[in-house]
Amino acid sequence: MTFTRISHFSLFFSSFFFLSSTLSSHLYPASATTPEKDGKTRSLYSEILRNEAAARLNDLGKVSDADGYLERTFMSPASVRAGFLIREWMEDAGLRTWVDSMGNLHGRVEGMNASAQALLIGSHLDTVVDAGMFDGSLGIISAISALKVLKSIGKLGELKRPVEVIAFSDEEGVRFQSTFLGSAAVAGILPVTALKISDKSGVTVQDALKGNSIEITEDSLLGLKYDPASIWGYFELHIEQGPVLEWVGFPLAVVKGIAGQTRMKVTVRGSQGHAGTVPMSMRRDPMAAAAELIVLLESLCKHPRDFLSSGGSCNEQTLESLSTSLVCTVGEISTWPSASNVIPGQVTFTVDLRAIDDVGREAVVYELSNQMYKICDRRSVSCIIERKHDANAVICDQELSSRLKSAAYSAVNKMVGQIHEEVPVLMSGAGHDAMAISHLTKVGMLFVRCRGGISHSPEEHVLEDDVWAAGLAVLQFLESHM
Amino acid sequence: MTFTRISHFSLFFSSFFFLSSTLSSHLYPASATTPEKDGKTRSLYSEILRNEAAARLNDLGKVSDADGYLERTFMSPASVRAGFLIREWMEDAGLRTWVDSMGNLHGRVEGMNASAQALLIGSHLDTVVDAGMFDGSLGIISAISALKVLKSIGKLGELKRPVEVIAFSDEEGVRFQSTFLGSAAVAGILPVTALKISDKSGVTVQDALKGNSIEITEDSLLGLKYDPASIWGYFELHIEQGPVLEWVGFPLAVVKGIAGQTRMKVTVRGSQGHAGTVPMSMRRDPMAAAAELIVLLESLCKHPRDFLSSGGSCNEQTLESLSTSLVCTVGEISTWPSASNVIPGQVTFTVDLRAIDDVGREAVVYELSNQMYKICDRRSVSCIIERKHDANAVICDQELSSRLKSAAYSAVNKMVGQIHEEVPVLMSGAGHDAMAISHLTKVGMLFVRCRGGISHSPEEHVLEDDVWAAGLAVLQFLESHM
Repeated sequence: MTFTRISHFSLFFSSFFFLSSTLSSHLYPASATTPEKDGKTRSLYSEILRNEAAARLNDLGKVSDADGYLERTFMSPASVRAGFLIREWMEDAGLRTWVDSMGNLHGRVEGMNASAQALLIGSHLDTVVDAGMFDGSLGIISAISALKVLKSIGKLGELKRPVEVIAFSDEEGVRFQSTFLGSAAVAGILPVTALKISDKSGVTVQDALKGNSIEITEDSLLGLKYDPASIWGYFELHIEQGPVLEWVGFPLAVVKGIAGQTRMKVTVRGSQGHAGTVPMSMRRDPMAAAAELIVLLESLCKHPRDFLSSGGSCNEQTLESLSTSLVCTVGEISTWPSASNVIPGQVTFTVDLRAIDDVGREAVVYELSNQMYKICDRRSVSCIIERKHDANAVICDQELSSRLKSAAYSAVNKMVGQIHEEVPVLMSGAGHDAMAISHLTKVGMLFVRCRGGISHSPEEHVLEDDVWAAGLAVLQFLESHM
Repeated sequence: MTFTRISHFSLFFSSFFFLSSTLSSHLYPASATTPEKDGKTRSLYSEILRNEAAARLNDLGKVSDADGYLERTFMSPASVRAGFLIREWMEDAGLRTWVDSMGNLHGRVEGMNASAQALLIGSHLDTVVDAGMFDGSLGIISAISALKVLKSIGKLGELKRPVEVIAFSDEEGVRFQSTFLGSAAVAGILPVTALKISDKSGVTVQDALKGNSIEITEDSLLGLKYDPASIWGYFELHIEQGPVLEWVGFPLAVVKGIAGQTRMKVTVRGSQGHAGTVPMSMRRDPMAAAAELIVLLESLCKHPRDFLSSGGSCNEQTLESLSTSLVCTVGEISTWPSASNVIPGQVTFTVDLRAIDDVGREAVVYELSNQMYKICDRRSVSCIIERKHDANAVICDQELSSRLKSAAYSAVNKMVGQIHEEVPVLMSGAGHDAMAISHLTKVGMLFVRCRGGISHSPEEHVLEDDVWAAGLAVLQFLESHM
């Protein structure tokens, strides 16, 4: 089941929702969800991949700097304690461990050939404030659990290449407002100036590391960069943080890429006036104009083909990509002077626009701006569109993704029996460590279903069976391809 | 030129605007704008109605409680000083003066028959904070000036009925957040509880009066009410506070009524989510929904006939009235949680809706709500529409309005020579003391052009020639009909 089909399905949203609810409850047969009694289900290693993994996620979810909610920021006491726990679990899985000078925790097994290119598997151990316990942690725990299964069946030494699990020290960027401190250091794209960034208390990144007996210098930071020639590739398993998998009723998806993003600020200026004294036909009302612009934005982003196919600026592949991946959001809006009885003089709103195809995103921004200016001209209001931020998309490696897809299919198929669905292929609209690591090596990602698509909240939840499916998919990947 | 024609004209806005600019500069012939040299122009009394009136407005505009900007609130030191000035000018015009126990300043001449029903002419002497100098004051000064002309030509005693000018003590309600303290007391609709309302410093209305040696009790407040049998009618001259007269290029308008008002709060709730991870087709985005609702609101209020004519809920007269008077404004809007990368969970906005026809306004609110609920249903978002405030329209007396219209026509015609335009008939979208006095007697209003439609601002401006036209219209009214 691909992302494309989802758009189609959503037309039948109500019935589809019940269908998928039914699927989520019954995807796993009763035999797979109870402790294994025979050879078939015993091979699914539920004790390690489901029960122990879920318990470890739960334990890790309690390691917090705050009372009553989960918060673990870069090099905080809770982050250090979480590192100790994870390190113990890595060693329990037969991995050699170390902490690098950016606070990343590594666990490595050399397999049959220590000089072969290594597979990296990673995710982050830091969290947002009032976080859920699966964001980041699930990717680390499922990798450790899969390697522990290999160790338990005596296959850890049979890996064709080194496998290294990395628990990155900072992805959320809560403490220093600078994301990817950990993975960017490993990828060699973190500027040395990052060491001098201060948190709210004036403590720098360098200070924070030193406080935990980790000495980092500009030179040692540069030395953290992995040699690309020594790396085969990277994959990351992460919760979806969106609603698609729940809605299609499938536990896992392969990620085709991480969306590129454009952030804009739109300012519409009109003619401020008394709400009672200016006839409708004489108004230059920036609020009514902004509303029309936002309706246009939604329409363009829902149906990019209707807007972009005539000009010839996009080829069929780009149009198809936009149709399935483009998302646009107005999250903030304000009026000036903001009184109920005053026609505003100015309205400002944000636009967040993401797509997996950079050329397509650029075409959308161009077309959107053109159409916006036309509307503003027709309404005799002025319109200022500022681009505040641009980030290009990261495309996941096709071969690696194909292997991850097979592994996910195989895992779910083993748990359920015969499945007829394909593994969904999703775009990631959110950023992940894989974005940084893509500067070093080819990357791939798996997504795991999370309840209601909710993340960055204590409501974040992954079914224990889905934790199991995640671990089993990593295991399948390691067994089949390593 | 009626309000109806304006809507039509606005279709040709650009060319129309230049036409009206031309008209405003050249409406008055050079002979009328220079000191009179012959009998014809001498009869227009520019020395009193233009030069002195403009100078008095300027003097009054300097009487402020604040340094650097104009502020005169109920019973403030500046209000009292302004009262002294106005009282002096009233007496200079031959009027007998007194201050009542709500701080209203009265100036009266009995004319030929002291027991005949009196004509009241009024406006307010208080201001908003950082006010313009014409709002309220122009109505008081133009009445005094016109009476001074009658005195100067020996006709004050020939008035058929008593004429009483009232400078109301509070219309803006800045100090006590309660409008119309002055005129509501005269109309007998001010509840006695109003005496106990406190300002920010805890000073009550009663205290504020007492501080200026005015004793008011519940009984004396009730005694302020005029006997309706003793009053012939009330008229008020006021700046338009809107752009229509400037755009049509005419200095004066007659007001057909003061619009009724409905204030609503609309809350749209959808499904909060990550801006990157929820496909467009799966969103329940309250911001996009709110934008569609606001576009609908504007469309309905611009073209009420298109929405209301089919259901039969409105007759032709109501439809026509709505087409020329309905105005709708969204002045405030906010999202929750208001972050650029989060699809809002909730959007709230205000609706201010005004029309001269109460039945029509009710039909618009009903139709609007229905259509809004339909849009919200289609989008699977919830929509709560709360009515926060309703006030019925005040319709000006037809006979009085007709006399005011003739007086305005006659004044402009005398100043310009032969005019071909009709005096515009406007709706007042803002409230005025006439609203309160309508509970006592029939009311009529004249509007005077103000620059850019701007009011409640130091930018508020009335051409000296328009001050003259205003005074001349009052004089014409008094001469022709009294």
